[in-house]
Amino acid sequence: MKYSGLFTDLYELTMMQGYMLQNTNEEVVFDMFFRKQPFSGGYSIFTGLEDLLDRIEKMFFSSDDIEYLRSIKIFKEEFLIYLKDFKFSGSIYAMDEGSVIFPGEPLLRIHSTLMEAQLIESLILNTINFQTLIATKAARVSYATGEGTLLEFGLRRAQGFDGAMSASRAAFIGGADATSNTLAGKVYGIPVRGSMAHSWIMAFDSELLAFRKFTEIYPDCTILLIDTFDTLGSGIENAIIIGLEQKKRGKSISVRLDSGDLFYLSRKIRKRLDDAGLEDVKIVVSNDLNEEIIHQLNTDGAKIDMWGVGTHLVTGGTEAAFGGVYKLAAKEINNNFIPTIKVSNNAIKTTNPGIKQVYRFYDKNGKAMADLVALEEESKPKDRPYTFYHPMYFHDKFTLTNYVSVKPMLSLKMENGKCLDKPISILDLQKKVKTNLSDLGISYKRIINPHIYKVSLSEKLKSLKAELLDEYK
Amino acid sequence: MKYSGLFTDLYELTMMQGYMLQNTNEEVVFDMFFRKQPFSGGYSIFTGLEDLLDRIEKMFFSSDDIEYLRSIKIFKEEFLIYLKDFKFSGSIYAMDEGSVIFPGEPLLRIHSTLMEAQLIESLILNTINFQTLIATKAARVSYATGEGTLLEFGLRRAQGFDGAMSASRAAFIGGADATSNTLAGKVYGIPVRGSMAHSWIMAFDSELLAFRKFTEIYPDCTILLIDTFDTLGSGIENAIIIGLEQKKRGKSISVRLDSGDLFYLSRKIRKRLDDAGLEDVKIVVSNDLNEEIIHQLNTDGAKIDMWGVGTHLVTGGTEAAFGGVYKLAAKEINNNFIPTIKVSNNAIKTTNPGIKQVYRFYDKNGKAMADLVALEEESKPKDRPYTFYHPMYFHDKFTLTNYVSVKPMLSLKMENGKCLDKPISILDLQKKVKTNLSDLGISYKRIINPHIYKVSLSEKLKSLKAELLDEYK
Repeated sequence: MKYSGLFTDLYELTMMQGYMLQNTNEEVVFDMFFRKQPFSGGYSIFTGLEDLLDRIEKMFFSSDDIEYLRSIKIFKEEFLIYLKDFKFSGSIYAMDEGSVIFPGEPLLRIHSTLMEAQLIESLILNTINFQTLIATKAARVSYATGEGTLLEFGLRRAQGFDGAMSASRAAFIGGADATSNTLAGKVYGIPVRGSMAHSWIMAFDSELLAFRKFTEIYPDCTILLIDTFDTLGSGIENAIIIGLEQKKRGKSISVRLDSGDLFYLSRKIRKRLDDAGLEDVKIVVSNDLNEEIIHQLNTDGAKIDMWGVGTHLVTGGTEAAFGGVYKLAAKEINNNFIPTIKVSNNAIKTTNPGIKQVYRFYDKNGKAMADLVALEEESKPKDRPYTFYHPMYFHDKFTLTNYVSVKPMLSLKMENGKCLDKPISILDLQKKVKTNLSDLGISYKRIINPHIYKVSLSEKLKSLKAELLDEYK
Repeated sequence: MKYSGLFTDLYELTMMQGYMLQNTNEEVVFDMFFRKQPFSGGYSIFTGLEDLLDRIEKMFFSSDDIEYLRSIKIFKEEFLIYLKDFKFSGSIYAMDEGSVIFPGEPLLRIHSTLMEAQLIESLILNTINFQTLIATKAARVSYATGEGTLLEFGLRRAQGFDGAMSASRAAFIGGADATSNTLAGKVYGIPVRGSMAHSWIMAFDSELLAFRKFTEIYPDCTILLIDTFDTLGSGIENAIIIGLEQKKRGKSISVRLDSGDLFYLSRKIRKRLDDAGLEDVKIVVSNDLNEEIIHQLNTDGAKIDMWGVGTHLVTGGTEAAFGGVYKLAAKEINNNFIPTIKVSNNAIKTTNPGIKQVYRFYDKNGKAMADLVALEEESKPKDRPYTFYHPMYFHDKFTLTNYVSVKPMLSLKMENGKCLDKPISILDLQKKVKTNLSDLGISYKRIINPHIYKVSLSEKLKSLKAELLDEYK
C-alpha cells in the first residue's frame, strides 16, 4: 500500500491525464525547496531521501488501484493503461541526506517527463517535509542539551504508525541518542532505552519494594522513577537506599523525574545524591520538554544528565509541518530547456528559474560561509572576489575573497528510475549530521534569534531572473 | 510490521518481564482518558477505535521480533517464549467511535492481566491520540465553515505515510467533505477532490489556454486556479470567459484562490462573477487556513463557498498531539478488585480510582446537560434531584432535576481478545459525529473561548476518592 501510485493528490492524476490528452508531456525540471526555517531556527537538516528514493523506485499501480480510478469516472482508458505500466523513469539530483539546508536553495531537482514529475510531487513533499521537520527539531533539542543525552520517548504522542516510525528514524539522524520505540530499534537499528511507568510503582505494596524488584531484574540499566508519590519526601530517599545497595555491588543507577519544577528538583536531588556518596547516579528528566525549556534549564544551572523528549520531538510541537514546495524550473521546447518562473506579488514566493546547482563556500577553518544558487551550466565558482546577489533585492550584493573551498551540494542520486547510492547506516547518517553541524558557525545554531545564513544568486542566475521578471511585467 | 508487538515503548516490555518474574501478573483495569481539550476548544471527537481494536486483535511477535529482543540481552528465555505465543486475551470497554468527549472521563477501560494491559498501552495512545486530535480539528474547522464545503488537502504536509492516511480518515469522520489523498479515497471510501496546480498553468502558453484545455477534459468538475499571475488582472477575467462558455453548454465552473487577502479578493471576485451573470460559479480558497481564520473570514462577510485546508487539518497545526494518558484504576487482590489512585501535587493529575462508567444526562430537547463519572457497581442514575460532585473540589456540587434521559457511554467492544462490533461505514461514522455534535449546545462549540462542559463524580466515587486520598496523606 505504501508504494501505491495512488498515494498522491488527485489533482496530480487529473493534470497527468490532461497532459497526456493535450500531448504536452515534455521533459521538465522541478525543484523542491523551502522558504522559511522551522522553529524560528537558523538551519534545517535534509532528511528522508533514502526512504523517498526507495518509494519512488517501487511506486506502481495495482489492478485494484486502476479499478478504483476507473470507478471515479473521470479517467479515460488510455490513461489507465499508461498507469498500469507506470514506472518512474526520470532522474533525481539531491543534496546528501543529512545536509544542513537553508531556504531558497533546491534540495531536490527532478528531471523527467511532465507527467512523471507531477505524479511524484505529493510523495516527495510528504516524505521529505516530515522527516526534515523532525531531524531539524532533534538537532535543535540535542544542541540545547549540550553534553546531555537525548532520549526520544514520542511513540504515544506521535501522529500514527509511520508518524512514530519515521520520527524515530529522523530524530536519531538529527541527534537523538536512543528511542523508546522498540520496533524502530529493530527496523532502523536505533539503540532502545526505557525506564518504568508510574503503574510499575503502583503494582507493588511500596515504592521501595517496586524499586528493589526492578533493580534485581535490570541491574545494568536501572532508571528509577521517583515522582509517583512524593519526589523529595519518599522517592529520592528510596532511590538512595537502592543506589547504595547497588554501589556495594559495583553497579550504578539513574533516577527519573517526570513532574514538578525540574530546575529546583534536579538541584535538590543532585545534592542529596552527592551527600549520600552517589555522585555517579545520573538524573533523567521528562515532562513535555522542548529545546527552549532545555536550553533555559541548562543555562540556569539545572543538574540534569539525560533528557527524555516525546511530543515536541516527534511532532515538531507548535510547528507540525515543514513547508517544502515543488515548483517547475524549466521545460523542454524543441530540444532546449527553457527556464520558467512563477511570479508572485509576494517576492519570497517568486521562484528562481532554470536548472540550478547549489555551492557552499567554506573558510580556512572549514566553516560554511555562504551558499550560492547558480545555473548548472555555469562552472564551479573560482573567481576571487566572487560576487553574491540577493535572491530578491538584486541591488544588494556582497563579495567573498577569503574562501578556501567550494562544494557543489546537488548530485545525481537516481538515474532513469534507478537509485544509484547504496543505503548508508543510520549511525553514519547521524555522524554526518554532527560533522555538517560542526561546520556551521555557532551564531547560526543559537536556539533563539539565530543569525541568518546567506543564500544568494550567481550573477548569471540573477540576470536570468531579472530578465524573466521584466518579460512578465 | 504494523501489528508487531514491538510497536511499543521498551519500558512496557521490561515492566512485563518484571511482572512475570515477580509473579505479580494479576488482573487489572486501566483507563485511557485526557485532561485538557485541544485547541482551547469545548469538546473532542473520540476517533480511532476501529483501527485500534483491529490492531490489538492482530498484534503478535514474529520470530524476527523475538530474535531482535533476544539481541538486546535484557530478556530471559521464559519471557521470550511467552511473547512468542502472545495474543491479547483481555476485554475492552469503550465509548462509541465518534462520541463527543470531555476531560476526566474514561474513554477506554482495559480489563486484562497486568502484563497484557501494559503491552498495549503505547499502541492505544498512539492510535487514539492522533485520530482523535484530527477528528476534533476537523469538527472545529467544519463548524467554522458554516454552510461551506470543507476539502482536506493535507497529504503533502502530513506526518508521513500513515500521518496522511489516518488523518484523511479522521478528518472525514470529524466533518471534512472530501480529501485530495487518492489512496485514502480508495482505502476508506472518502470522496476525492482536486483542482490544478500552478504548474498546470505554467505548462501552457497562456493562462486562458490552460483554463480552456482543463475545462475541455473535466467539464463536470472544473476548478480553475486564478492566482498564478494576477488574480484580479488576468485570472478572474480568463475564468469568466471560460465560465460563460461553459454556461452556454449548461455547465458550471468554480474558481480557486491560493494567495492574497481572501476577504478582499473573494468579495471582488464574487462581484465580478455576478456582474458577468455567473452567480452559480463557486469560490474555493486555500492557503494555510485554520478554524480561527475561517471563522473570522465568515464573520466579516467573505464570499467563500469551499475551503481547502491542509497543514492545520492533518497535523493539528499549533497543537500536534492529543494528550491522552493511560492509568491503573484497579487491581485484583484475592479475587477482589481494589481501586488504585495515582496522587499528584497537581490535583488535575490525581486519577479517579476504581472501575468506572460514564453517564451523559440529556434534557427534553435531547441536548447534553452534563456528564457523570460513577462506579460501575452503581446503578444507572435515576434520582431527582441527582447530585454531581466536582472531580477535585469535593465541596463544589450541583444538582440536576430536569433531565429526561441518561445514557451510559462505555460499552463492551472487545471480549477475550475478540472484537464484538462489525465495522461501521465511514459515512455512517461521520453522520454519527454530526448527530452527536447537534446534541451539544452552541456555547460548547464556540471556536474561541467556549463554555466548559461539566464532568462530575457520583457521590460514591467522590467518597472513594476522598477516602483513598486520606489514606495516602
